[in-house]
Amino acid sequence: MTDTIYSGYLRTPHYYETDQMGIVHHSNYIRWFEEARVQLLDFLNCSYKEIEDAGIIIPVLDVSCQYKGMIRFGDEIRIDIAIHSYTGTRLTFGYTIYPVDGDTILTTGTSSHCFLSAETQRLIRLKKTHPQIHQIFEDYYAQTKLK
Amino acid sequence: MTDTIYSGYLRTPHYYETDQMGIVHHSNYIRWFEEARVQLLDFLNCSYKEIEDAGIIIPVLDVSCQYKGMIRFGDEIRIDIAIHSYTGTRLTFGYTIYPVDGDTILTTGTSSHCFLSAETQRLIRLKKTHPQIHQIFEDYYAQTKLK
Amino acid sequence: MTDTIYSGYLRTPHYYETDQMGIVHHSNYIRWFEEARVQLLDFLNCSYKEIEDAGIIIPVLDVSCQYKGMIRFGDEIRIDIAIHSYTGTRLTFGYTIYPVDGDTILTTGTSSHCFLSAETQRLIRLKKTHPQIHQIFEDYYAQTKLK
Amino acid sequence: MTDTIYSGYLRTPHYYETDQMGIVHHSNYIRWFEEARVQLLDFLNCSYKEIEDAGIIIPVLDVSCQYKGMIRFGDEIRIDIAIHSYTGTRLTFGYTIYPVDGDTILTTGTSSHCFLSAETQRLIRLKKTHPQIHQIFEDYYAQTKLK
Repeated sequence: MTDTIYSGYLRTPHYYETDQMGIVHHSNYIRWFEEARVQLLDFLNCSYKEIEDAGIIIPVLDVSCQYKGMIRFGDEIRIDIAIHSYTGTRLTFGYTIYPVDGDTILTTGTSSHCFLSAETQRLIRLKKTHPQIHQIFEDYYAQTKLK
Repeated sequence: MTDTIYSGYLRTPHYYETDQMGIVHHSNYIRWFEEARVQLLDFLNCSYKEIEDAGIIIPVLDVSCQYKGMIRFGDEIRIDIAIHSYTGTRLTFGYTIYPVDGDTILTTGTSSHCFLSAETQRLIRLKKTHPQIHQIFEDYYAQTKLK
Repeated sequence: MTDTIYSGYLRTPHYYETDQMGIVHHSNYIRWFEEARVQLLDFLNCSYKEIEDAGIIIPVLDVSCQYKGMIRFGDEIRIDIAIHSYTGTRLTFGYTIYPVDGDTILTTGTSSHCFLSAETQRLIRLKKTHPQIHQIFEDYYAQTKLK
Repeated sequence: MTDTIYSGYLRTPHYYETDQMGIVHHSNYIRWFEEARVQLLDFLNCSYKEIEDAGIIIPVLDVSCQYKGMIRFGDEIRIDIAIHSYTGTRLTFGYTIYPVDGDTILTTGTSSHCFLSAETQRLIRLKKTHPQIHQIFEDYYAQTKLK
């Protein structure tokens, strides 16, 4: 188990992500959350691609996002990501967006996921089928719970 | 006050909305919810464009989405939209997605909004500043509460 | 061979398609072209889904788009679509965007496609493998050439 | 005039940029081109944001994209960007996408732009109104012509 906590996903909004209100369109945050968890899994040596190549798909069961401050083109942000809960069959991430060099919370959000066999399209219990991936989620959950 | 309830927003997924899992990417539902409320406001004779032209902006405070069934390219869906709550300063929509000709719930979701003056960027109370728009929300809230 | 020409794809821009210039972001037109050709193929009784279900994939070889007038949220547009060329292995569509009730050209564009076997990922000649689909493209090409 | 040539925009495709063909949807390349030119302008100390803050808007006049190889989730790519022509009122960028560590051309593309006054919405000649920005484009044009 590594002691290193993932230091957050850095992002600058793209021009095409703005809308005519002059801010980032709210739907894009859901996409940023996905970018953040993809980078987290890379960091944990358990990439999305490897997971999919291992025959596991990770559908999204639900998402939520709370917009507290507007984010604009030209801003630089950091997305922190924690595991809020992990039951072996269900995984919930929590996201917090900050200015890259500040601690004002701009946005919070969550996403919940399950694990399906790509072959059977049925739920799998990672602990049984993929204990190594299971352990990675267990460890990161333990780490982020302590924060 | 009209007796007619909005009959729902019909949509077919676009090819570019699918992802490599072969389903509509979850972020697009947040965009569909926006499409549905834009069409609802048109239906209620109170279009987004007219609202913006009247100097009101309607930021999104939060969204949520619960994915119960997968939606694929080639499917036809209907998005029902209700007002879950309306306080005069805050408006919450509820969305339910069905197959166009069925009653299986594929997705549920919500979005909450406030009203800002485009000029001052400050919160406005529609009842005071725009009573006609206020009444439209009150009426639709009353209608959809009864359903 | 039907005498009916496809009358064009009607579309209103979505709010999330605007950018902070207050116009529809230029990348979305490429997506609209796809929507138009998907609807055209439906109209020609040869839907994208049926084509994919028949084991054919239709990659995009190139696209181009020329922006002549700005399109904004609240506008209503019509996309006309013609087959510029069809060789049996390569298909080029031409797109023209107009205001829904006008004849000012707002945008022009093209997209070229080939046909691959989903199984072998190799080029196929529709005339040989799928003569019925081949004939549909031949006919629409002949029709739109005359316009 | 700096001797340093911009070394290219590095990018990994996002999951939400894939489609059900299992590749990056073709429309996203147009967005990547924008990301690349935004980063190039940052590199040239003449950011999009500063340009917009100076009252200049840079509409897109046309785009083109030629897809030569498929790009998938998990790939790492580099987008080289050159100025193909610059007339003082019109600027054309050329883009070439490579694997991050290879020289196989995956994609080529172009985008042309003019310069408008945000205030008057009329064309401006940068040489006259903003000679410093004009010089930056002249210099980068000269550099990339020599490559």
